[in-house]
Amino acid sequence: MIIVGERINGMFKDIRRAIRKKDKGPVQEMALRQLEAGADYLDINVGPASADKAGTMVWLVETVREVTDAPLAIDSPNLEAMRAGLEACKGSEVMINSTTGKQEDLEAYMPLAQEYDASIVGLTMDENGIPGDVNGRTEIALKILASAMEHGIPTDKLFIDPVILPVNADQRQPANVMKAIGEFKLLSDPPPHIIVGLSNISQGTKQRPLINRTYLVMCMAHGLDAAILDPLDRELMDAMITAELLLNKFIYCDSFLEAYRR
Amino acid sequence: MIIVGERINGMFKDIRRAIRKKDKGPVQEMALRQLEAGADYLDINVGPASADKAGTMVWLVETVREVTDAPLAIDSPNLEAMRAGLEACKGSEVMINSTTGKQEDLEAYMPLAQEYDASIVGLTMDENGIPGDVNGRTEIALKILASAMEHGIPTDKLFIDPVILPVNADQRQPANVMKAIGEFKLLSDPPPHIIVGLSNISQGTKQRPLINRTYLVMCMAHGLDAAILDPLDRELMDAMITAELLLNKFIYCDSFLEAYRR
Repeated sequence: MIIVGERINGMFKDIRRAIRKKDKGPVQEMALRQLEAGADYLDINVGPASADKAGTMVWLVETVREVTDAPLAIDSPNLEAMRAGLEACKGSEVMINSTTGKQEDLEAYMPLAQEYDASIVGLTMDENGIPGDVNGRTEIALKILASAMEHGIPTDKLFIDPVILPVNADQRQPANVMKAIGEFKLLSDPPPHIIVGLSNISQGTKQRPLINRTYLVMCMAHGLDAAILDPLDRELMDAMITAELLLNKFIYCDSFLEAYRR
Repeated sequence: MIIVGERINGMFKDIRRAIRKKDKGPVQEMALRQLEAGADYLDINVGPASADKAGTMVWLVETVREVTDAPLAIDSPNLEAMRAGLEACKGSEVMINSTTGKQEDLEAYMPLAQEYDASIVGLTMDENGIPGDVNGRTEIALKILASAMEHGIPTDKLFIDPVILPVNADQRQPANVMKAIGEFKLLSDPPPHIIVGLSNISQGTKQRPLINRTYLVMCMAHGLDAAILDPLDRELMDAMITAELLLNKFIYCDSFLEAYRR
Protein backbone atom coordinates (compact mmCIF):
# COMPACT_ATOMS: atom_id res chain seq x y z
CA MET A 1 0.00 0.00 0.00
CA ILE A 2 1.03 3.54 -0.73
CA ILE A 3 0.08 5.64 2.28
CA VAL A 4 -0.57 9.36 1.98
CA GLY A 5 -0.61 10.88 5.47
CA GLU A 6 -3.64 13.18 5.78
CA ARG A 7 -2.77 15.12 8.93
CA ILE A 8 -1.12 18.27 7.55
CA ASN A 9 -4.43 19.91 6.73
CA GLY A 10 -5.79 23.26 7.93
CA MET A 11 -9.04 21.44 8.69
CA PHE A 12 -7.37 19.99 11.80
CA LYS A 13 -7.25 22.36 14.75
CA ASP A 14 -3.57 21.87 15.59
CA ILE A 15 -2.46 22.58 12.03
CA ARG A 16 -4.91 25.45 11.60
CA ARG A 17 -3.49 27.12 14.69
CA ALA A 18 0.09 26.54 13.50
CA ILE A 19 -0.72 28.06 10.09
CA ARG A 20 -2.31 31.13 11.63
CA LYS A 21 0.63 31.70 13.99
CA LYS A 22 3.18 30.73 11.33
CA ASP A 23 4.48 28.30 13.93
CA LYS A 24 6.60 25.68 12.16
CA GLY A 25 6.95 23.30 15.10
CA PRO A 26 3.58 21.49 15.00
CA VAL A 27 3.72 21.13 11.21
CA GLN A 28 7.22 19.69 11.23
CA GLU A 29 6.45 17.41 14.14
CA MET A 30 3.35 16.10 12.35
CA ALA A 31 5.41 15.50 9.20
CA LEU A 32 7.97 13.41 11.06
CA ARG A 33 5.43 11.50 13.14
CA GLN A 34 3.48 10.46 10.05
CA LEU A 35 6.62 9.31 8.24
CA GLU A 36 7.70 7.36 11.31
CA ALA A 37 4.24 5.71 11.34
CA GLY A 38 4.55 4.56 7.74
CA ALA A 39 3.44 7.40 5.44
CA ASP A 40 4.98 7.30 1.95
CA TYR A 41 3.65 10.73 0.98
CA LEU A 42 2.59 13.67 3.15
CA ASP A 43 -0.58 15.41 2.04
CA ILE A 44 -0.34 19.21 2.29
CA ASN A 45 -3.67 21.02 2.44
CA VAL A 46 -4.22 24.63 3.52
CA GLY A 47 -7.88 23.96 4.17
CA PRO A 48 -9.91 26.75 5.77
CA ALA A 49 -6.89 28.07 7.69
CA SER A 50 -5.99 30.95 5.37
CA ALA A 51 -7.40 33.01 2.50
CA ASP A 52 -3.94 33.25 0.91
CA LYS A 53 -4.05 29.71 -0.51
CA ALA A 54 -0.91 29.90 -2.63
CA GLY A 55 1.23 31.72 -0.08
CA THR A 56 0.19 29.40 2.73
CA MET A 57 0.77 26.32 0.57
CA VAL A 58 4.33 27.48 -0.13
CA TRP A 59 4.92 28.15 3.57
CA LEU A 60 3.65 24.66 4.46
CA VAL A 61 5.75 22.95 1.80
CA GLU A 62 8.90 24.84 2.76
CA THR A 63 8.26 24.22 6.43
CA VAL A 64 7.98 20.48 5.83
CA ARG A 65 10.96 20.39 3.49
CA GLU A 66 13.15 21.84 6.22
CA VAL A 67 12.86 18.52 8.05
CA THR A 68 12.33 15.92 5.30
CA ASP A 69 12.72 15.22 1.57
CA ALA A 70 9.80 12.79 1.64
CA PRO A 71 7.34 12.94 -1.28
CA LEU A 72 4.50 15.42 -0.81
CA ALA A 73 0.94 15.45 -2.14
CA ILE A 74 -0.18 18.98 -2.96
CA ASP A 75 -3.85 19.02 -2.05
CA SER A 76 -5.83 22.03 -3.24
CA PRO A 77 -8.85 22.84 -5.40
CA ASN A 78 -7.11 26.13 -6.24
CA LEU A 79 -5.01 25.98 -9.40
CA GLU A 80 -2.72 28.81 -8.35
CA ALA A 81 -2.02 27.17 -4.98
CA MET A 82 -1.40 23.86 -6.78
CA ARG A 83 1.19 25.38 -9.10
CA ALA A 84 2.86 27.26 -6.23
CA GLY A 85 3.03 24.07 -4.20
CA LEU A 86 4.50 22.06 -7.07
CA GLU A 87 7.05 24.77 -7.70
CA ALA A 88 8.08 24.76 -4.03
CA CYS A 89 8.55 20.96 -4.20
CA LYS A 90 10.95 21.07 -7.12
CA GLY A 91 13.58 18.38 -6.99
CA SER A 92 11.56 15.88 -4.99
CA GLU A 93 8.78 13.44 -5.75
CA VAL A 94 5.37 15.03 -5.73
CA MET A 95 1.69 14.17 -6.24
CA ILE A 96 -1.14 16.36 -7.52
CA ASN A 97 -4.24 15.88 -5.35
CA SER A 98 -6.36 16.13 -7.43
CA THR A 99 -8.05 16.53 -10.79
CA THR A 100 -11.61 15.46 -11.57
CA GLY A 101 -12.86 14.00 -14.84
CA LYS A 102 -14.22 17.41 -15.94
CA GLN A 103 -12.74 18.37 -19.28
CA GLU A 104 -11.51 21.74 -18.01
CA ASP A 105 -9.84 20.14 -14.97
CA LEU A 106 -8.13 17.50 -17.10
CA GLU A 107 -6.87 20.24 -19.41
CA ALA A 108 -5.52 22.23 -16.46
CA TYR A 109 -4.04 19.51 -14.25
CA MET A 110 -2.71 16.89 -16.66
CA PRO A 111 -0.27 19.37 -18.25
CA LEU A 112 0.84 20.34 -14.74
CA ALA A 113 1.53 16.68 -13.93
CA GLN A 114 3.55 16.43 -17.10
CA GLU A 115 5.46 19.66 -16.47
CA TYR A 116 6.41 18.72 -12.89
CA ASP A 117 6.81 14.99 -13.52
CA ALA A 118 4.20 14.54 -10.79
CA SER A 119 1.91 11.70 -9.86
CA ILE A 120 -1.74 12.69 -10.08
CA VAL A 121 -4.97 11.68 -8.36
CA GLY A 122 -8.05 11.63 -10.61
CA LEU A 123 -11.45 11.71 -8.88
CA THR A 124 -14.24 9.90 -10.72
CA MET A 125 -16.60 12.87 -10.75
CA ASP A 126 -17.37 15.32 -13.54
CA GLU A 127 -19.76 18.04 -14.72
CA ASN A 128 -22.66 15.88 -13.53
CA GLY A 129 -21.29 15.20 -10.06
CA ILE A 130 -20.40 11.82 -8.57
CA PRO A 131 -22.04 8.88 -10.39
CA GLY A 132 -24.20 6.76 -8.12
CA ASP A 133 -23.27 3.49 -9.82
CA VAL A 134 -20.24 1.41 -10.72
CA ASN A 135 -20.47 1.96 -14.49
CA GLY A 136 -20.62 5.72 -14.19
CA ARG A 137 -17.50 5.76 -12.05
CA THR A 138 -15.72 3.41 -14.44
CA GLU A 139 -16.55 5.57 -17.47
CA ILE A 140 -15.00 8.62 -15.83
CA ALA A 141 -12.00 6.57 -14.73
CA LEU A 142 -11.46 5.59 -18.36
CA LYS A 143 -11.68 9.22 -19.43
CA ILE A 144 -9.06 10.18 -16.83
CA LEU A 145 -6.83 7.29 -17.91
CA ALA A 146 -7.10 8.31 -21.56
CA SER A 147 -6.26 11.91 -20.69
CA ALA A 148 -3.21 10.79 -18.67
CA MET A 149 -2.00 8.72 -21.63
CA GLU A 150 -2.47 11.66 -24.03
CA HIS A 151 -0.31 13.76 -21.74
CA GLY A 152 2.41 11.13 -21.53
CA ILE A 153 1.82 10.37 -17.87
CA PRO A 154 2.79 6.76 -17.16
CA THR A 155 0.14 4.52 -15.59
CA ASP A 156 2.20 4.06 -12.45
CA LYS A 157 1.90 7.79 -11.77
CA LEU A 158 -1.89 7.79 -12.09
CA PHE A 159 -4.06 7.26 -9.01
CA ILE A 160 -7.78 6.81 -9.71
CA ASP A 161 -10.02 7.76 -6.78
CA PRO A 162 -13.60 6.39 -6.88
CA VAL A 163 -14.74 9.09 -4.37
CA ILE A 164 -15.97 7.75 -1.05
CA LEU A 165 -19.09 9.27 0.48
CA PRO A 166 -20.03 8.97 4.16
CA VAL A 167 -21.80 5.68 4.92
CA ASN A 168 -24.58 7.61 6.68
CA ALA A 169 -25.23 9.73 3.56
CA ASP A 170 -25.89 7.05 0.93
CA GLN A 171 -25.51 3.54 2.20
CA ARG A 172 -25.41 1.93 -1.25
CA GLN A 173 -22.19 3.71 -2.15
CA PRO A 174 -19.61 1.84 -0.05
CA ALA A 175 -20.39 -1.42 -1.88
CA ASN A 176 -20.44 0.38 -5.25
CA VAL A 177 -17.03 1.90 -4.58
CA MET A 178 -15.63 -1.54 -3.71
CA LYS A 179 -16.91 -2.98 -6.96
CA ALA A 180 -15.65 0.05 -8.89
CA ILE A 181 -12.16 -0.59 -7.51
CA GLY A 182 -12.25 -4.08 -9.00
CA GLU A 183 -13.37 -2.64 -12.36
CA PHE A 184 -10.66 0.05 -12.40
CA LYS A 185 -7.99 -2.66 -12.08
CA LEU A 186 -9.17 -4.06 -15.43
CA LEU A 187 -8.91 -0.78 -17.35
CA SER A 188 -5.29 -1.19 -18.38
CA ASP A 189 -2.33 -3.49 -18.02
CA PRO A 190 -0.52 -2.56 -15.87
CA PRO A 191 -3.51 -1.03 -14.09
CA PRO A 192 -3.48 2.47 -12.59
CA HIS A 193 -3.14 2.79 -8.83
CA ILE A 194 -6.44 3.02 -6.98
CA ILE A 195 -6.59 5.45 -4.08
CA VAL A 196 -9.31 6.54 -1.65
CA GLY A 197 -9.66 9.38 0.83
CA LEU A 198 -10.52 6.93 3.57
CA SER A 199 -11.79 9.18 6.36
CA ASN A 200 -14.75 10.32 4.24
CA ILE A 201 -16.44 6.98 4.80
CA SER A 202 -16.95 7.70 8.50
CA GLN A 203 -17.61 11.44 8.35
CA GLY A 204 -20.32 12.31 10.86
CA THR A 205 -20.47 8.83 12.40
CA LYS A 206 -19.81 7.88 16.01
CA GLN A 207 -17.51 4.93 15.27
CA ARG A 208 -14.96 6.54 13.01
CA PRO A 209 -11.83 4.38 13.59
CA LEU A 210 -13.79 1.10 13.43
CA ILE A 211 -15.57 2.09 10.21
CA ASN A 212 -12.33 3.39 8.68
CA ARG A 213 -10.29 0.26 9.31
CA THR A 214 -13.09 -2.12 8.32
CA TYR A 215 -13.70 -0.33 5.05
CA LEU A 216 -10.00 0.01 4.21
CA VAL A 217 -9.56 -3.75 4.43
CA MET A 218 -12.69 -4.41 2.32
CA CYS A 219 -11.40 -2.09 -0.40
CA MET A 220 -7.95 -3.70 -0.27
CA ALA A 221 -9.64 -7.07 -0.86
CA HIS A 222 -10.84 -5.64 -4.19
CA GLY A 223 -7.50 -4.20 -5.26
CA LEU A 224 -7.09 -0.84 -3.55
CA ASP A 225 -3.36 -0.11 -3.37
CA ALA A 226 -3.17 3.44 -2.00
CA ALA A 227 -5.01 5.52 0.58
CA ILE A 228 -5.05 8.97 2.09
CA LEU A 229 -5.48 8.29 5.79
CA ASP A 230 -4.22 8.99 9.28
CA PRO A 231 -1.12 6.80 9.76
CA LEU A 232 -1.08 7.73 13.45
CA ASP A 233 -4.15 5.50 13.93
CA ARG A 234 -2.25 2.41 14.99
CA GLU A 235 -5.17 -0.02 14.80
CA LEU A 236 -5.85 1.19 11.26
CA MET A 237 -2.24 0.55 10.29
CA ASP A 238 -2.32 -2.88 11.99
CA ALA A 239 -5.39 -3.81 9.94
CA MET A 240 -3.73 -2.57 6.77
CA ILE A 241 -0.53 -4.50 7.40
CA THR A 242 -2.53 -7.66 8.15
CA ALA A 243 -4.56 -7.27 4.95
CA GLU A 244 -1.33 -6.94 2.97
CA LEU A 245 -0.08 -10.13 4.62
CA LEU A 246 -3.28 -11.96 3.65
CA LEU A 247 -2.91 -10.67 0.09
CA ASN A 248 0.60 -12.18 0.01
CA LYS A 249 2.34 -8.84 -0.42
CA PHE A 250 5.14 -9.78 1.97
CA ILE A 251 6.31 -12.97 3.62
CA TYR A 252 4.76 -14.20 6.85
CA CYS A 253 6.72 -14.16 10.06
CA ASP A 254 5.31 -14.33 13.60
CA SER A 255 6.19 -10.70 14.26
CA PHE A 256 4.92 -9.44 10.90
CA LEU A 257 3.59 -6.16 12.33
CA GLU A 258 6.99 -5.21 13.70
CA ALA A 259 8.79 -6.57 10.64
CA TYR A 260 6.62 -4.50 8.31
CA ARG A 261 7.22 -1.37 10.34
CA ARG A 262 11.00 -1.89 10.29
CA MET B 1 -24.19 -13.08 8.24
CA ILE B 2 -25.11 -16.48 9.56
CA ILE B 3 -22.88 -17.15 12.55
CA VAL B 4 -22.06 -20.69 13.66
CA GLY B 5 -20.53 -20.56 17.15
CA GLU B 6 -17.42 -22.76 17.21
CA ARG B 7 -16.83 -23.06 20.94
CA ILE B 8 -18.57 -26.34 21.82
CA ASN B 9 -15.71 -28.46 20.58
CA GLY B 10 -13.68 -31.08 22.48
CA MET B 11 -10.60 -29.41 21.06
CA PHE B 12 -11.04 -26.61 23.62
CA LYS B 13 -9.80 -27.46 27.12
CA ASP B 14 -12.92 -26.32 29.00
CA ILE B 15 -15.25 -28.39 26.82
CA ARG B 16 -12.88 -31.39 26.76
CA ARG B 17 -12.85 -31.41 30.56
CA ALA B 18 -16.64 -31.10 30.70
CA ILE B 19 -17.08 -34.01 28.27
CA ARG B 20 -14.74 -36.25 30.24
CA LYS B 21 -16.46 -35.47 33.54
CA LYS B 22 -19.93 -35.54 31.93
CA ASP B 23 -20.34 -32.10 33.51
CA LYS B 24 -23.21 -30.34 31.74
CA GLY B 25 -22.65 -26.90 33.26
CA PRO B 26 -19.75 -25.60 31.12
CA VAL B 27 -21.35 -26.89 27.90
CA GLN B 28 -24.70 -25.29 28.65
CA GLU B 29 -23.10 -22.05 29.75
CA MET B 30 -21.05 -21.93 26.53
CA ALA B 31 -24.20 -22.55 24.49
CA LEU B 32 -26.03 -19.65 26.11
CA ARG B 33 -23.07 -17.27 26.00
CA GLN B 34 -22.58 -17.83 22.26
CA LEU B 35 -26.26 -17.29 21.52
CA GLU B 36 -26.24 -14.13 23.61
CA ALA B 37 -23.21 -12.94 21.59
CA GLY B 38 -24.99 -13.43 18.28
CA ALA B 39 -24.59 -17.07 17.18
CA ASP B 40 -27.35 -18.34 14.88
CA TYR B 41 -26.19 -21.97 15.06
CA LEU B 42 -24.11 -23.77 17.68
CA ASP B 43 -21.46 -26.10 16.29
CA ILE B 44 -21.23 -29.37 18.22
CA ASN B 45 -17.94 -31.23 17.85
CA VAL B 46 -16.70 -34.07 20.07
CA GLY B 47 -13.14 -33.51 18.92
CA PRO B 48 -10.41 -35.50 20.63
CA ALA B 49 -12.32 -35.60 23.93
CA SER B 50 -13.77 -39.10 23.62
CA ALA B 51 -13.40 -42.32 21.63
CA ASP B 52 -17.16 -42.91 21.76
CA LYS B 53 -17.93 -40.36 19.03
CA ALA B 54 -21.62 -41.16 18.58
CA GLY B 55 -22.43 -41.50 22.28
CA THR B 56 -20.61 -38.31 23.17
CA MET B 57 -22.26 -36.42 20.31
CA VAL B 58 -25.68 -37.44 21.60
CA TRP B 59 -24.73 -36.40 25.15
CA LEU B 60 -23.56 -32.99 23.88
CA VAL B 61 -26.68 -32.41 21.79
CA GLU B 62 -29.01 -33.43 24.60
CA THR B 63 -27.08 -31.32 27.09
CA VAL B 64 -27.39 -28.26 24.88
CA ARG B 65 -31.05 -28.93 24.08
CA GLU B 66 -31.88 -28.86 27.78
CA VAL B 67 -31.19 -25.11 27.72
CA THR B 68 -32.02 -24.01 24.17
CA ASP B 69 -33.86 -24.95 20.98
CA ALA B 70 -31.39 -22.99 18.86
CA PRO B 71 -30.25 -24.60 15.59
CA LEU B 72 -27.21 -26.88 15.95
CA ALA B 73 -24.46 -27.79 13.49
CA ILE B 74 -23.43 -31.42 13.90
CA ASP B 75 -19.71 -31.40 13.24
CA SER B 76 -18.06 -34.78 12.81
CA PRO B 77 -16.05 -36.70 10.23
CA ASN B 78 -17.66 -39.88 11.62
CA LEU B 79 -20.83 -40.91 9.80
CA GLU B 80 -22.26 -42.81 12.76
CA ALA B 81 -21.75 -39.81 15.06
CA MET B 82 -23.33 -37.55 12.42
CA ARG B 83 -26.44 -39.69 12.18
CA ALA B 84 -26.71 -40.00 15.95
CA GLY B 85 -26.36 -36.22 16.32
CA LEU B 86 -29.03 -35.54 13.68
CA GLU B 87 -31.36 -38.03 15.32
CA ALA B 88 -30.87 -36.33 18.71
CA CYS B 89 -31.72 -32.96 17.10
CA LYS B 90 -35.04 -34.11 15.69
CA GLY B 91 -37.65 -31.40 15.66
CA SER B 92 -35.28 -28.47 15.47
CA GLU B 93 -33.26 -26.84 12.70
CA VAL B 94 -29.94 -28.57 12.09
CA MET B 95 -26.85 -28.34 9.89
CA ILE B 96 -24.53 -31.12 8.70
CA ASN B 97 -20.91 -30.01 9.04
CA SER B 98 -19.73 -31.33 6.65
CA THR B 99 -19.43 -33.31 3.42
CA THR B 100 -16.56 -32.99 0.96
CA GLY B 101 -16.81 -33.20 -2.82
CA LYS B 102 -15.66 -36.86 -2.78
CA GLN B 103 -18.23 -39.02 -4.53
CA GLU B 104 -18.57 -41.39 -1.57
CA ASP B 105 -19.06 -38.50 0.87
CA LEU B 106 -21.70 -36.89 -1.34
CA GLU B 107 -23.49 -40.23 -1.56
CA ALA B 108 -23.41 -40.62 2.22
CA TYR B 109 -24.17 -37.09 3.43
CA MET B 110 -26.57 -35.65 0.86
CA PRO B 111 -29.19 -38.35 1.56
CA LEU B 112 -28.78 -37.62 5.27
CA ALA B 113 -29.43 -33.93 4.64
CA GLN B 114 -32.54 -34.89 2.70
CA GLU B 115 -33.74 -37.35 5.35
CA TYR B 116 -33.31 -34.89 8.24
CA ASP B 117 -34.27 -31.75 6.26
CA ALA B 118 -30.87 -30.41 7.31
CA SER B 119 -28.67 -27.66 5.95
CA ILE B 120 -25.31 -28.98 4.79
CA VAL B 121 -21.77 -27.62 4.51
CA GLY B 122 -19.82 -28.82 1.46
CA LEU B 123 -16.03 -28.44 1.60
CA THR B 124 -14.33 -27.86 -1.76
CA MET B 125 -11.90 -30.76 -1.41
CA ASP B 126 -12.04 -34.22 -2.94
CA GLU B 127 -10.04 -37.40 -3.64
CA ASN B 128 -7.13 -35.20 -4.73
CA GLY B 129 -7.13 -32.98 -1.65
CA ILE B 130 -7.66 -29.22 -1.54
CA PRO B 131 -7.14 -27.52 -4.91
CA GLY B 132 -4.46 -24.83 -4.84
CA ASP B 133 -6.28 -22.55 -7.25
CA VAL B 134 -9.60 -20.79 -7.70
CA ASN B 135 -10.79 -22.92 -10.64
CA GLY B 136 -10.19 -26.19 -8.84
CA ARG B 137 -12.22 -25.02 -5.88
CA THR B 138 -15.00 -23.77 -8.15
CA GLU B 139 -15.20 -27.10 -10.01
CA ILE B 140 -15.71 -28.99 -6.76
CA ALA B 141 -18.24 -26.39 -5.59
CA LEU B 142 -20.21 -27.03 -8.77
CA LYS B 143 -20.10 -30.79 -8.17
CA ILE B 144 -21.41 -30.29 -4.62
CA LEU B 145 -24.13 -27.95 -5.87
CA ALA B 146 -25.20 -30.47 -8.53
CA SER B 147 -25.32 -33.25 -5.95
CA ALA B 148 -27.43 -31.10 -3.61
CA MET B 149 -29.87 -30.41 -6.44
CA GLU B 150 -30.11 -34.12 -7.32
CA HIS B 151 -31.02 -34.83 -3.72
CA GLY B 152 -33.67 -32.15 -3.62
CA ILE B 153 -31.77 -29.93 -1.19
CA PRO B 154 -32.74 -26.29 -1.79
CA THR B 155 -29.91 -23.84 -2.51
CA ASP B 156 -30.63 -21.89 0.65
CA LYS B 157 -29.74 -24.97 2.71
CA LEU B 158 -26.40 -25.45 0.98
CA PHE B 159 -23.27 -23.84 2.43
CA ILE B 160 -20.17 -24.08 0.24
CA ASP B 161 -16.89 -23.86 2.17
CA PRO B 162 -13.78 -23.00 0.13
CA VAL B 163 -11.50 -24.45 2.88
CA ILE B 164 -9.23 -21.93 4.54
CA LEU B 165 -5.63 -22.91 5.25
CA PRO B 166 -3.37 -21.15 7.75
CA VAL B 167 -1.76 -18.05 6.28
CA ASN B 168 1.64 -19.26 7.47
CA ALA B 169 1.25 -22.58 5.58
CA ASP B 170 0.59 -21.35 2.03
CA GLN B 171 0.41 -17.63 1.70
CA ARG B 172 -1.17 -17.64 -1.76
CA GLN B 173 -4.29 -19.34 -0.50
CA PRO B 174 -6.03 -16.52 1.43
CA ALA B 175 -6.33 -14.45 -1.78
CA ASN B 176 -7.40 -17.52 -3.76
CA VAL B 177 -10.14 -18.30 -1.26
CA MET B 178 -11.41 -14.71 -1.48
CA LYS B 179 -11.62 -14.94 -5.25
CA ALA B 180 -13.24 -18.37 -5.04
CA ILE B 181 -15.98 -16.89 -2.83
CA GLY B 182 -16.79 -14.39 -5.60
CA GLU B 183 -16.92 -17.24 -8.14
CA PHE B 184 -19.17 -19.43 -5.98
CA LYS B 185 -21.74 -16.62 -5.85
CA LEU B 186 -22.07 -16.92 -9.64
CA LEU B 187 -22.75 -20.66 -9.70
CA SER B 188 -26.51 -20.41 -9.32
CA ASP B 189 -29.31 -17.92 -8.87
CA PRO B 190 -30.08 -17.67 -6.02
CA PRO B 191 -26.50 -18.54 -5.06
CA PRO B 192 -25.62 -21.03 -2.32
CA HIS B 193 -24.47 -19.68 1.01
CA ILE B 194 -20.69 -19.38 1.35
CA ILE B 195 -19.20 -20.33 4.70
CA VAL B 196 -15.67 -20.50 6.12
CA GLY B 197 -14.15 -22.03 9.22
CA LEU B 198 -12.53 -18.72 10.07
CA SER B 199 -10.08 -19.65 12.82
CA ASN B 200 -8.08 -21.85 10.43
CA ILE B 201 -6.62 -18.74 8.80
CA SER B 202 -4.65 -17.87 11.94
CA GLN B 203 -3.75 -21.37 13.18
CA GLY B 204 -0.22 -21.31 14.55
CA THR B 205 0.19 -17.54 14.26
CA LYS B 206 0.89 -15.06 17.05
CA GLN B 207 -1.79 -12.52 16.07
CA ARG B 208 -4.86 -14.71 15.89
CA PRO B 209 -7.69 -12.23 16.65
CA LEU B 210 -6.26 -9.54 14.36
CA ILE B 211 -5.77 -11.97 11.47
CA ASN B 212 -9.22 -13.51 12.02
CA ARG B 213 -11.14 -10.24 11.97
CA THR B 214 -9.17 -8.78 9.07
CA TYR B 215 -9.70 -11.85 6.94
CA LEU B 216 -13.39 -12.18 7.81
CA VAL B 217 -14.05 -8.67 6.54
CA MET B 218 -12.04 -9.26 3.35
CA CYS B 219 -14.07 -12.41 2.61
CA MET B 220 -17.34 -10.59 3.34
CA ALA B 221 -16.32 -7.97 0.78
CA HIS B 222 -16.38 -10.80 -1.79
CA GLY B 223 -19.73 -12.24 -0.76
CA LEU B 224 -19.13 -14.49 2.24
CA ASP B 225 -22.42 -14.73 4.13
CA ALA B 226 -21.75 -17.31 6.85
CA ALA B 227 -18.87 -18.24 9.14
CA ILE B 228 -17.94 -20.69 11.84
CA LEU B 229 -16.18 -18.52 14.40
CA ASP B 230 -15.93 -17.53 18.05
CA PRO B 231 -18.79 -15.09 18.68
CA LEU B 232 -17.30 -14.33 22.11
CA ASP B 233 -14.51 -12.40 20.37
CA ARG B 234 -16.14 -8.99 20.64
CA GLU B 235 -13.74 -7.17 18.32
CA LEU B 236 -14.38 -9.83 15.68
CA MET B 237 -18.13 -9.35 16.00
CA ASP B 238 -17.72 -5.54 15.89
CA ALA B 239 -15.77 -5.86 12.63
CA MET B 240 -18.41 -8.20 11.21
CA ILE B 241 -21.27 -5.89 12.13
CA THR B 242 -19.42 -2.92 10.62
CA ALA B 243 -18.76 -4.82 7.39
CA GLU B 244 -22.47 -5.68 7.16
CA LEU B 245 -23.27 -1.99 7.62
CA LEU B 246 -20.87 -1.06 4.81
CA LEU B 247 -22.47 -3.72 2.60
CA ASN B 248 -25.84 -2.06 3.24
CA LYS B 249 -27.32 -5.10 4.99
CA PHE B 250 -29.06 -2.96 7.61
CA ILE B 251 -29.80 0.71 8.03
CA TYR B 252 -27.22 3.06 9.55
CA CYS B 253 -27.78 4.59 12.94
CA ASP B 254 -25.15 6.13 15.21
CA SER B 255 -25.37 3.24 17.66
CA PHE B 256 -25.39 0.55 14.96
CA LEU B 257 -23.30 -1.90 17.02
CA GLU B 258 -25.82 -1.87 19.88
CA ALA B 259 -28.78 -1.78 17.48
CA TYR B 260 -27.50 -4.86 15.64
CA ARG B 261 -26.98 -6.73 18.88
CA ARG B 262 -30.51 -5.93 20.07
